[in-house]
Amino acid sequence: MDFAISINPQAALPLHRQVYEELRWGILSGRLTPGQKLPSTRMLAQSLSISRATVTLSYEQLLSEGYLETIVGSGTFVCRQIPDDLLNTAPIESKLQPTTTSISLSAYGQILSDKAFLRLPEAELEINFNYGRPAFDKFPIDLWRQLLARHCRPNSNVLDYTIYSMGYQPLREAIATYLTRSRAVKCSAEQIIIVGGSQQGLDLITRLFINRGDGIALEEPGYLGARRAFLAQGASLCPVPVDTSGLIVSHLTTGIIPNIKLVYVTPSHQFPTGGVLSLPRRLELLAWAQKSGVMIIEDDYDSEYRYGERPIPALQGLDQGNCVIYLGTFSKVLFPALRLGYLVVPDDLVSIFARAKWLADRQCSLLEQYALTDFITEGHLERHIRRMRSLYNQRRQTLVQSLLSHFGDRVTILGENAGMHLMIKIHTHLNDDEIIQRAALAGVSMVAAYPNYLKTSPGSEFILGYAELNESQISEGVRRLAQIVSHLPQPRQTK
Amino acid sequence: MDFAISINPQAALPLHRQVYEELRWGILSGRLTPGQKLPSTRMLAQSLSISRATVTLSYEQLLSEGYLETIVGSGTFVCRQIPDDLLNTAPIESKLQPTTTSISLSAYGQILSDKAFLRLPEAELEINFNYGRPAFDKFPIDLWRQLLARHCRPNSNVLDYTIYSMGYQPLREAIATYLTRSRAVKCSAEQIIIVGGSQQGLDLITRLFINRGDGIALEEPGYLGARRAFLAQGASLCPVPVDTSGLIVSHLTTGIIPNIKLVYVTPSHQFPTGGVLSLPRRLELLAWAQKSGVMIIEDDYDSEYRYGERPIPALQGLDQGNCVIYLGTFSKVLFPALRLGYLVVPDDLVSIFARAKWLADRQCSLLEQYALTDFITEGHLERHIRRMRSLYNQRRQTLVQSLLSHFGDRVTILGENAGMHLMIKIHTHLNDDEIIQRAALAGVSMVAAYPNYLKTSPGSEFILGYAELNESQISEGVRRLAQIVSHLPQPRQTK
Repeated sequence: MDFAISINPQAALPLHRQVYEELRWGILSGRLTPGQKLPSTRMLAQSLSISRATVTLSYEQLLSEGYLETIVGSGTFVCRQIPDDLLNTAPIESKLQPTTTSISLSAYGQILSDKAFLRLPEAELEINFNYGRPAFDKFPIDLWRQLLARHCRPNSNVLDYTIYSMGYQPLREAIATYLTRSRAVKCSAEQIIIVGGSQQGLDLITRLFINRGDGIALEEPGYLGARRAFLAQGASLCPVPVDTSGLIVSHLTTGIIPNIKLVYVTPSHQFPTGGVLSLPRRLELLAWAQKSGVMIIEDDYDSEYRYGERPIPALQGLDQGNCVIYLGTFSKVLFPALRLGYLVVPDDLVSIFARAKWLADRQCSLLEQYALTDFITEGHLERHIRRMRSLYNQRRQTLVQSLLSHFGDRVTILGENAGMHLMIKIHTHLNDDEIIQRAALAGVSMVAAYPNYLKTSPGSEFILGYAELNESQISEGVRRLAQIVSHLPQPRQTK
Repeated sequence: MDFAISINPQAALPLHRQVYEELRWGILSGRLTPGQKLPSTRMLAQSLSISRATVTLSYEQLLSEGYLETIVGSGTFVCRQIPDDLLNTAPIESKLQPTTTSISLSAYGQILSDKAFLRLPEAELEINFNYGRPAFDKFPIDLWRQLLARHCRPNSNVLDYTIYSMGYQPLREAIATYLTRSRAVKCSAEQIIIVGGSQQGLDLITRLFINRGDGIALEEPGYLGARRAFLAQGASLCPVPVDTSGLIVSHLTTGIIPNIKLVYVTPSHQFPTGGVLSLPRRLELLAWAQKSGVMIIEDDYDSEYRYGERPIPALQGLDQGNCVIYLGTFSKVLFPALRLGYLVVPDDLVSIFARAKWLADRQCSLLEQYALTDFITEGHLERHIRRMRSLYNQRRQTLVQSLLSHFGDRVTILGENAGMHLMIKIHTHLNDDEIIQRAALAGVSMVAAYPNYLKTSPGSEFILGYAELNESQISEGVRRLAQIVSHLPQPRQTK
């Protein structure tokens, strides 16, 4: 019998009862299987250092209850016909799992039980224009390994809880310095909360500000991951249209929108259309938010990448009313599997966010925070951004040129000269899903823009990520896409 | 001027207007400071490759609006007296931050805004009996570094998003195998959700099952971290007393407790009292939960450590009603800063938990999941547990012996021969805070049990973690604690 049993001579329960309980438990839990032979009373008594009479007493009780059976000349066995209907001996594979229909989910759980709410991703194809992914092969992974190894050493402090849930203090300082210099964010290290990527940042903000039914204004179209977090929390969403200068703020300020608590914006590079929120609109938005007691979430997800231009200063730096929460991530500039991002929150919200972070998952992985600190303070981050800016600029130009040469006037390219993706409108009679399906057959995946619309999408819009693809992949991918469209008559342009 | 400005010749906005906007923005955002000299129109035109007339037009506009001033013979400067009341030039340090009093938090946010809800930890002392921390110096950190380095290589897949938010598939498989063998958990890899430590597991469960006002039954006393997650979500808590055999289940089954959705238990090693939930109670709890449509959270936080005995099979393995969610963590057996734990959930809840994990933070850090997979599958986990079990057993014995020899009959030791802490009751007239304060003055920190009680604590109970301390620290710490108590008259024992 490879099933050891535990007894405690100091316990109040008599020893024979303990042995009985342990064996019965072993049978009920399936660790002792029907027909399995038990050790002799002598052997078990010896191995447990208790008297043989004690073991005999236990065995007799189990025999009388039908858990064990004796086969003369052979020994004692777990009964093949266990009487207890609680017993579950079927192997997992064949076990009929009863559904937990009687369980009632929370309102949050019910929203998440809808399969359409968040679909699992599709398999990848030969050429992926899926957005949000950097050039993995250009990340200095050897350097990253060295930085990890530097801190993953005996007597380092990477194993323990941090004192505060807001994150590793030198990392908070490095991020504050970086943001002040490169993004004109006005903050001290004390305002930085390290979070597990921007999704966690969005989730924490939503939980802290939104009761069911509270309003959130957001860009239309806008980032789906944010919208999901808002909807799951039961927010009432108020889509505000965008144009080439970003959110049309006058729709907010002149419209009558009840009970708005948050406004979600991507001012540096509107997702997915690519516009940059103009200065007059920034000032208008800030003034309105301050007056209305509304918090602005500034999601600065890929602001590092502007080609031939300096990054645009953050909205947060213009704020004088403490009504902006700034959100950034290292998923785009380093790599997505590094689950580290940050919030910059007004001073008087820091401790509340710290508690929310503690409750959510206590803190982020410490070793990666150490490595990231060095990556920033030793200049690797800005160097890497400069390199990627140049690379992505080339890739973007290749994409634009390929689109123009293969599609001609069948395509309109939207968005600023920035970021890691662009949006296109294809002039075609095919509907979006047909194009996606035909592209997939040609080994090309891309994402339609329509899921990012809360209301009806104008259609025929697609988001093309280019950061991960080399120039020949880009031009080949566009060639295949153009073939799909060119086989079909071009629609009359209505404008 | 080290302030580069961005213009876009393709944009609809005229170039002189773009230059104007950029400079005004630079001034408003504080990147151009009062008194700062601007380049000449000729130089700026040259650097932007635009006509000098365009730049002159922009400068004139800014001069007329008072943003710039000209000093004859010197050049053009940012005005020292900016007319715009939006301008904010004070440095961060001296800036008076208006408080965001107008912001209304959610009900969740309001709970978290109470400072008493979650206090920041205290500074550490010379000898820390604080619980929950393993022997950091015994963790095989050189091996861990090698495992990280093995996967942190060019062409590895550690940089990208995982396809599914449930976690890295080989890790899910390794955990399922480990739990089946060592904990008698009945599960397949598909039921495993990798989470950012057990706190995230508790948070996800709470969000998915609890609406404001829903009931959660929990052990009294019980784990504070769980209680905080429940309270923050607005749950109504029903404390159920424990004895040396864990939760007194009959209080649940015979009491009239309305609207209970979840029961939170630590069956292997009741926190903090140390009891083990008996088999009859396990069966009673499962039968009641199944009948009542209640989910059980089985928090198996330190079940690896039983001394001289095999770990006790998990409650989950006895469940036939799919009403147990099993929760485990690597914080105790590896190290706390590794934010990896796992849930085992019934089949029909997997996709809902996967969506909740996606919304919370998309996925856990991938590199650490790779390293952990190897750590488990190559046998390091079980080897490390065996080593630590032997070490902690020694340390526990030292603690018990020290307590008995220094305190005599002034102390009662509670709990099973298991885990990484034990609970003591000191027979003294001092109140708990006095003892904590006097201990701190003697360089010893420990934690009173009373915060783990929802109702009134009996008092004089303390939780002593011993896993992190060597034997001389333990005996010296106990000696100092005993001195505090021995200077005072011993209370008459009431029983």
